[in-house]
Amino acid sequence: MEAVLVLTIIMSALLSALAQKPHHCKSPPYLQGKLAVDFPEGKSMVYEKFYYDALEERIRVVAVGKEGEHDVFMDRLLLFREKVYFDISYHNKSCIKASLDATFTPIAIPLDARHRAQVVLGSLSSPAQGLLVNNWVGTDAKTKANYSLTFTELGCIPILSMYHFDGVGHFLSSFFDMVIGIEDPMVFVPPDFCFSKNLVEWKDGKAVNFFTAIL
Amino acid sequence: MEAVLVLTIIMSALLSALAQKPHHCKSPPYLQGKLAVDFPEGKSMVYEKFYYDALEERIRVVAVGKEGEHDVFMDRLLLFREKVYFDISYHNKSCIKASLDATFTPIAIPLDARHRAQVVLGSLSSPAQGLLVNNWVGTDAKTKANYSLTFTELGCIPILSMYHFDGVGHFLSSFFDMVIGIEDPMVFVPPDFCFSKNLVEWKDGKAVNFFTAIL
Repeated sequence: MEAVLVLTIIMSALLSALAQKPHHCKSPPYLQGKLAVDFPEGKSMVYEKFYYDALEERIRVVAVGKEGEHDVFMDRLLLFREKVYFDISYHNKSCIKASLDATFTPIAIPLDARHRAQVVLGSLSSPAQGLLVNNWVGTDAKTKANYSLTFTELGCIPILSMYHFDGVGHFLSSFFDMVIGIEDPMVFVPPDFCFSKNLVEWKDGKAVNFFTAIL
Repeated sequence: MEAVLVLTIIMSALLSALAQKPHHCKSPPYLQGKLAVDFPEGKSMVYEKFYYDALEERIRVVAVGKEGEHDVFMDRLLLFREKVYFDISYHNKSCIKASLDATFTPIAIPLDARHRAQVVLGSLSSPAQGLLVNNWVGTDAKTKANYSLTFTELGCIPILSMYHFDGVGHFLSSFFDMVIGIEDPMVFVPPDFCFSKNLVEWKDGKAVNFFTAIL
């Protein structure tokens, strides 16, 4: 009887230890939020609003910012299943349609990423004053970029992503105002004028994951 | 009677509007935590552990890191009331004592800082997945440095501080694992060997606030 008790205690201790180890998590399938992207050597800073649907494999990104002295604006809808993306201009009521030769990669910690640290942003001394996050590092197999990803422990929400491309520099994306869900599913439907004569078709495939797609 | 009711509603609406406006907050008087400091142009990265006592006006900072190829280590105790600081080396059992010609500035949002944004790090869609923070910007009157400070909305806990000194660059400090309180008050007491013959006395005053003291 005593042996069974000891075994139970050891087993439950082992299981709880396993449960507490941070795991390579995947973000919720519907997500929308904002991000600030800092380009290498502070050359430009871009604010983006994005909408992410991992079930239908669609991403919409609207970016505004400055590149040196120039204003930057981009409104892009990526439809991975249809292997196509649209650059939309409501101002001109025109569209650029291009092929998208990439498989959809969900927002997640890559399986070969190495867990570096679990930290609290702010403090857990009082409620709503801190956030438990994990930091993971690794090298992207395709692009050879070194990355550092910081996601929340609960919910697997991205907080910070850093990609370093050799000879180019650091791309730092800070995520904020994230909402689980999609407020308006119409953001994934190309506007009517994308099917009219104003459509320009391109053929340039590019391989992307979520974090490089938003750069 | 109706007029009183209307007045009450107006007053409570006004008060709640005032209460919701982010205010120039001050951090709790006892605080300990860690920070990562990124020096200009990524030249060096330093990890620090700090202890902060705003009532007795004392700060202890232990820093380890790299400056280029060199390892950096610093263990400094700043006693603002006594107008003195100690650089402590447990390895050599030696101490450097120097005068500290500065008034203590508590960790707080300066009164002339401008509120830039309130954002959620992560998401408020589920509990413990997000953190409400405020970002403030301004120019330090003494050093003329432009700064950006991000503190939690609840509890006024520092999350990120950025100081930009003209001709030098950005100093970015990320705070984490913050605890309200002091685990061991002995961190503010200089070790015995700081009062022995191994003490070296310096006389170089410098003006500091918390964020520049930890650089």
